[in-house]
Amino acid sequence: MSGSILVINPNSNNDVTQGISDALDGFRFPEGPAIECLTLAEGPIGIESQVDSDSVILPLVRLAQSRPDAAAIVIACYSDPGIDAVRSVAVCPVFGIQESGTLMAMARGDRFGVIALSDRSIARHLRYLARMQVLPRLAAERAADLTVAETASEGDTYQTLRQAGQALVETDGANVIILGCAGMARHRAALEDSLGVPVIDPTQAAVAMALGAVRSDA
Amino acid sequence: MSGSILVINPNSNNDVTQGISDALDGFRFPEGPAIECLTLAEGPIGIESQVDSDSVILPLVRLAQSRPDAAAIVIACYSDPGIDAVRSVAVCPVFGIQESGTLMAMARGDRFGVIALSDRSIARHLRYLARMQVLPRLAAERAADLTVAETASEGDTYQTLRQAGQALVETDGANVIILGCAGMARHRAALEDSLGVPVIDPTQAAVAMALGAVRSDA
Amino acid sequence: MSGSILVINPNSNNDVTQGISDALDGFRFPEGPAIECLTLAEGPIGIESQVDSDSVILPLVRLAQSRPDAAAIVIACYSDPGIDAVRSVAVCPVFGIQESGTLMAMARGDRFGVIALSDRSIARHLRYLARMQVLPRLAAERAADLTVAETASEGDTYQTLRQAGQALVETDGANVIILGCAGMARHRAALEDSLGVPVIDPTQAAVAMALGAVRSDA
Amino acid sequence: MSGSILVINPNSNNDVTQGISDALDGFRFPEGPAIECLTLAEGPIGIESQVDSDSVILPLVRLAQSRPDAAAIVIACYSDPGIDAVRSVAVCPVFGIQESGTLMAMARGDRFGVIALSDRSIARHLRYLARMQVLPRLAAERAADLTVAETASEGDTYQTLRQAGQALVETDGANVIILGCAGMARHRAALEDSLGVPVIDPTQAAVAMALGAVRSDA
Amino acid sequence: MSGSILVINPNSNNDVTQGISDALDGFRFPEGPAIECLTLAEGPIGIESQVDSDSVILPLVRLAQSRPDAAAIVIACYSDPGIDAVRSVAVCPVFGIQESGTLMAMARGDRFGVIALSDRSIARHLRYLARMQVLPRLAAERAADLTVAETASEGDTYQTLRQAGQALVETDGANVIILGCAGMARHRAALEDSLGVPVIDPTQAAVAMALGAVRSDA
Amino acid sequence: MSGSILVINPNSNNDVTQGISDALDGFRFPEGPAIECLTLAEGPIGIESQVDSDSVILPLVRLAQSRPDAAAIVIACYSDPGIDAVRSVAVCPVFGIQESGTLMAMARGDRFGVIALSDRSIARHLRYLARMQVLPRLAAERAADLTVAETASEGDTYQTLRQAGQALVETDGANVIILGCAGMARHRAALEDSLGVPVIDPTQAAVAMALGAVRSDA
Repeated sequence: MSGSILVINPNSNNDVTQGISDALDGFRFPEGPAIECLTLAEGPIGIESQVDSDSVILPLVRLAQSRPDAAAIVIACYSDPGIDAVRSVAVCPVFGIQESGTLMAMARGDRFGVIALSDRSIARHLRYLARMQVLPRLAAERAADLTVAETASEGDTYQTLRQAGQALVETDGANVIILGCAGMARHRAALEDSLGVPVIDPTQAAVAMALGAVRSDA
Repeated sequence: MSGSILVINPNSNNDVTQGISDALDGFRFPEGPAIECLTLAEGPIGIESQVDSDSVILPLVRLAQSRPDAAAIVIACYSDPGIDAVRSVAVCPVFGIQESGTLMAMARGDRFGVIALSDRSIARHLRYLARMQVLPRLAAERAADLTVAETASEGDTYQTLRQAGQALVETDGANVIILGCAGMARHRAALEDSLGVPVIDPTQAAVAMALGAVRSDA
Repeated sequence: MSGSILVINPNSNNDVTQGISDALDGFRFPEGPAIECLTLAEGPIGIESQVDSDSVILPLVRLAQSRPDAAAIVIACYSDPGIDAVRSVAVCPVFGIQESGTLMAMARGDRFGVIALSDRSIARHLRYLARMQVLPRLAAERAADLTVAETASEGDTYQTLRQAGQALVETDGANVIILGCAGMARHRAALEDSLGVPVIDPTQAAVAMALGAVRSDA
Repeated sequence: MSGSILVINPNSNNDVTQGISDALDGFRFPEGPAIECLTLAEGPIGIESQVDSDSVILPLVRLAQSRPDAAAIVIACYSDPGIDAVRSVAVCPVFGIQESGTLMAMARGDRFGVIALSDRSIARHLRYLARMQVLPRLAAERAADLTVAETASEGDTYQTLRQAGQALVETDGANVIILGCAGMARHRAALEDSLGVPVIDPTQAAVAMALGAVRSDA
Repeated sequence: MSGSILVINPNSNNDVTQGISDALDGFRFPEGPAIECLTLAEGPIGIESQVDSDSVILPLVRLAQSRPDAAAIVIACYSDPGIDAVRSVAVCPVFGIQESGTLMAMARGDRFGVIALSDRSIARHLRYLARMQVLPRLAAERAADLTVAETASEGDTYQTLRQAGQALVETDGANVIILGCAGMARHRAALEDSLGVPVIDPTQAAVAMALGAVRSDA
Repeated sequence: MSGSILVINPNSNNDVTQGISDALDGFRFPEGPAIECLTLAEGPIGIESQVDSDSVILPLVRLAQSRPDAAAIVIACYSDPGIDAVRSVAVCPVFGIQESGTLMAMARGDRFGVIALSDRSIARHLRYLARMQVLPRLAAERAADLTVAETASEGDTYQTLRQAGQALVETDGANVIILGCAGMARHRAALEDSLGVPVIDPTQAAVAMALGAVRSDA
C-alpha cells in the first residue's frame, strides 16, 4: 500500500485547503504515506446549505474515480457530503470527518459536545448522528455563529469558540468537544488547555483512522 | 509530546506481547512516537475469566502511575480491563482495544460482527457494548472456541476464524469484522481478503487512535 | 390552497410514472386537489445505485423551484433522493415515499416488514430508518430480487413478492408490509388479501399524508 | 369499500363532536367516503383522568361492533382510549389520533413538540410515545393548562396555545407542533402562521391516514 | 403500615386464586404483613383477549377503592390490566406482575426470555415492554400454547414449558426466564433446575417488591 | 434454602455497616432468613474513587467464596463494585444495590431521579445505567455534595438531600427518587413525605429482591 491518503476539501477555497493541510503535519512521517490535500474545483466557495452540500456529491465521485491509486480518502467537510456515493465507487477506505470525529470523541469521553458554525447546520448534523445511532452519547451541539472564513481567522474567533465550548462542558455536561468544521484546527490546542477536556479536530481524527486502515499491513 | 505510546499486555505471557508488538510495526515511523509494548508482570498467564480480568486492574493502575512520561496508554486485552481506573489516574489519553476496535469498525461498515475466543467472553463483551450505547450497530458476536494461545498459532486457527467470520457476514449481515482478541492480528489480512469486508485488529485500531491524539499538535 | 400535489418520479421512465399515476386514482376527487405525476427528464432510466440516487438531487431541486404553485411535493422513489435538499428550497410540504410509507405502516401494525427490490438497496434503506429513529419497529427487510421494470409486470412478479411477504410475516413477525418500491402498487390488494396483514404502497401513503397537509385548512 | 370513515368522540359532549366534524370538512369530497362524526353516548362529559379514559373502552368496543359497515374508524380523543380493544374486534383499519398525529408530525419535522391540556395528561402521553418507540423524536411536551371546553373557545385560548407552542419551538427545539387534544383544530392555521413551523391537528392527521387506507384500492 | 398486601386475581376463577396464594406461602411470616389473595368477582373466567383484559379495569378500580386499608396492591394477571387506572386511585403502591417479573429478571440475567401462554398474548406483552423501554433486554418471547387452566395442571404442562424455556436459553440466548402467566408457579423450581438459569414467577416477584415497599419503614 | 442473606459493606467502616443493618430491620422476620451484615475488612474506609471501587473486587470475591452457605449476597455500595466477578464465583443470587434500587424505582414511577454523593460519582453511575440499558427512564442525577460520613449524620444532611430531591422532582420531572448511596436510609421516610413521591433506599430494594429469590420455593 504505497498510495497517498487523499484529503479532499469539497469547497473551492484553496486557503481552507491549505489550513487543513497545515493541521495534518503531525501525521506526515518520513516513511509514512503521503497526505495529499486537494481542493474540489467544482465545489462552491463555501458549503453552507443543504444544496451546497449535495452539489458536490457527483464531483466528489468523479474525483475519487480519477484516483484509483489512493490508499484512503478523507472527505474534509463536516457534513460528510457524498460519503455513501464515494464509498460505493472507491476501492479504498473512505472516511468522513463528522463520522470520524464523532467516533474519536467517543474514545475520549462519555458524552460529546459539538461546536457548529451555525444553527442551520445543527439540524443536518443531528440527522447524521441519528443515522449513526450514536445520539445517546451526544451532550449537546451549540452554534458559534461564525462563517467558514471566520473560523480560520485570528481575532475574536477563539473567544467565540471557547464560550461555546464552555457552555457545552459546564451546562450540557460534555466531557469531550468536537470542532464541527474542517477549519477550526488552529484553535484546537488552546481550547483543550482552556476547557480542560479533550478537543477533537475532525480532520485529524479522520486522518488518524485512515492511517490505521492504511498501515495495518505495513 | 515526545513520550511513547505504551501498549500494555495485561497478561504475563511475553510471547503474546511480542505478537502484539509485531502487529504494530506499521505504526512505527522514523520521526514518530515510540510504540513500547509492555508485559504486565503481575498478570495471569491468560485472561479468560471475569476474575482474571478484574485481577489486573490494580497492577495496571500502578504501571500507569509509574510512567507519567507516556504520551498515551493502550490496554491490549479485549475486555478493556481497568480502563476506568487507569483513566482516573493517568494524565495522558487511555485507549481500550475493545472500545477502539468497535469505534474503528463503525467507520468502516454499518453493522459490525465480532469473533470472540469463547462463548463465555461474549456476555462480557455485550455488557461493554451496552455501556458504550452502540449495541444497535452490532450484527452479532460469534465464538471461535479457541484459547488465547491457539489464536496466535498456525494450524487450524485461520480456518476457524474464517468460518466464524463467514457466518457473521452471510448469516448475520455484518459488513465489517472485529477480531475480538489481542492475539489474532497475524490472520487479519488473509481474513479481509477472504471475507471481502474490512477486518479490524483492535490493537492496531487503538494505536491509530492514540497516534491521532498524540500527533494532533505536532 | 388550490395548487396541485406534485408527484415526481425521479427516473426518466414514463411507464413508471404512468403506473404511479394509475395507483393514485383513488385520491383524485372532483373538488379535491389535482394530483399531477411528473417524470424527471434528467433522471436515469432506473435508480438502482447510490450514485443514481444522488444524481437526481439537483434536478429535483430545480424542478421543485420551478413549481412554486405546488401545494405539496411527493418524491416517488423509495430512496427518498434529495428529500433534505428539496425541503430546503420548497415553500410547500415535501414527502418522501420511504418516510411516508414507514409512518403509515406504523399506524397499521406493531412491526413492519419491507419488500425491497434487491439486497444492495437494503443497506441504504436501513441507514434511512436509522436516521428516522424507527429501527426498533422494523421486523425485517427482504429482497425480492427484481428490477424496477419487473415489479410492474405481470408474470412471476406477484409470486415473488408474495413469497417475500410471507417470510416477513411468518418468519420475521411482521404484522404490516411495506412495498419498498414505487412500482409495486398493482400487486398491493392481492398481497394484502393473501398475506392477511395490511400492505402499504408507499406512494399512496405519501399522497394521503400530502392530502392531510393540503386539506387541513379547507 | 363504500363505507364511511367513522370518527368517534369518546366523550358525550356533542359540541365537541360538532367542532371535530367542522375541522374535517376539507376531507369531505363529492365522490369520496362519508366522514361520520359520532358522540359516544356512554362517555363522560370530558375525558380528563385515566379512569375516564379507561371507562370508554367497552362502550367503544360495542360501538365498533355495531358498525361492521365502517370503512375505517378514528378514535378522536388524544389518549387513544381503547385502541387495542377496538382493533381486536374491528374488521376495518382503526386509527388513534395521538398515534396518527405523532406519525404525521414525524413526516413534517425532525423533532415534534406537543401542546397538552394539562400536566397530568403529559405522563399518560409519554407512556404512549414510549410504547410507540418514538420518544427520541420528541422535543418536549408542554401543558397549556386548559380544560377541554376552553380549547374550543375564543378568548385567551389562542394566546395560551401560542405561548406553549413558542416555548416548544424556541426553548425545546421543536420544528413541528402537535395539538394534543381533539378540540384545538380551530386554532391550527393561526398557530402555524404565527409559529413558523407546521402545526398538526391530530384528528385531521388520522382522517387523512384513514383516507389513505380506504382509497388505496379505489 | 399494618395493612395487608392485596393480591388480586382479575379473573373469576377461584382455583387460580388458590394456586396463586399457595405460591406465596414463602412470603408469609409470623410478624410480616398479611398476603391476601382476592378473586375479582366481576372478572371473566379467564383473561385471554384484549377485551377480556380491558373489561376488568373498572372493577379493579372499584375493588382498590374499597380497600383503603391495603398496604400494597398486586394485580396478578400477566397483562397488568388496569395498572394505570388503579395507580391513579390507590393511595398505596401498586404492582403489576408483568412489570415486576420483568424487573426482577433484569436483576438476575442480562437477557430475559418469556414463556407466554399463546401467540396472541405475545404482541400485547411486547407493547408493554416497549412502554417500559426495556425491549433491548429481551432475548425472545415464546408461546407454550396452553390455556390458563392447563398451566396449573400436572400432565404435559411441565414438558411444554420446559421445551419453550430450553429454546429461549439455547436458541435465543436468554439467561433468565420469566413465566408469562400467574398460574405457572408450581413448575418454577423444576424448570430452574432443569434449565440451569433463574426462572422467575412474576407474582412472587411482585409480592417481594411489594414487601420491599411495605417494610422499608418497619 | 436455610442460608442467610449476606449484605456486604465493601468499605471497612463498621459504623456504616451498622447503619445499613438498622435500615434492614423491617426485613427480619421470626421465621425468615437471617440478614447478616458484614464489613469488608480489606476495604478502604470509604469508597469514593474508581480505584477505591475496583480495589475491593478481589476481597469481595474471596469473601463470597468463603461463604458457600449464603442464600443470597447483596453488595451494599452504590457503585456495585465487583458485581460481575462475585456473580462469576457465587452459587447463589447476587444483587448490587444500584441495579436493584434502579429496578425497584422503575416499578414505582415512570422516570427516576438519583441523589448522588458527589459529581464525580455521577459519571460512574451513568455508565452503569447505560450498561443496564435503562437510561431512557432516567430523569436526572444530581449531586448532594456530601461525604459518605455526612450522609448518615444529623445536621444539615436532610435539608441537602431534600433540596436535591426537590430539584429532581420539580425541574427534572422525576416521579420517584433513588438514594444513590448505601448510607442515606435514615432520611428515606422523611424525604418521601416531604417530596410527595416514592423514595427508594437501594439496600432495602436489594434485600427485598433477594428475599424474593430466596423465598420463592419456601
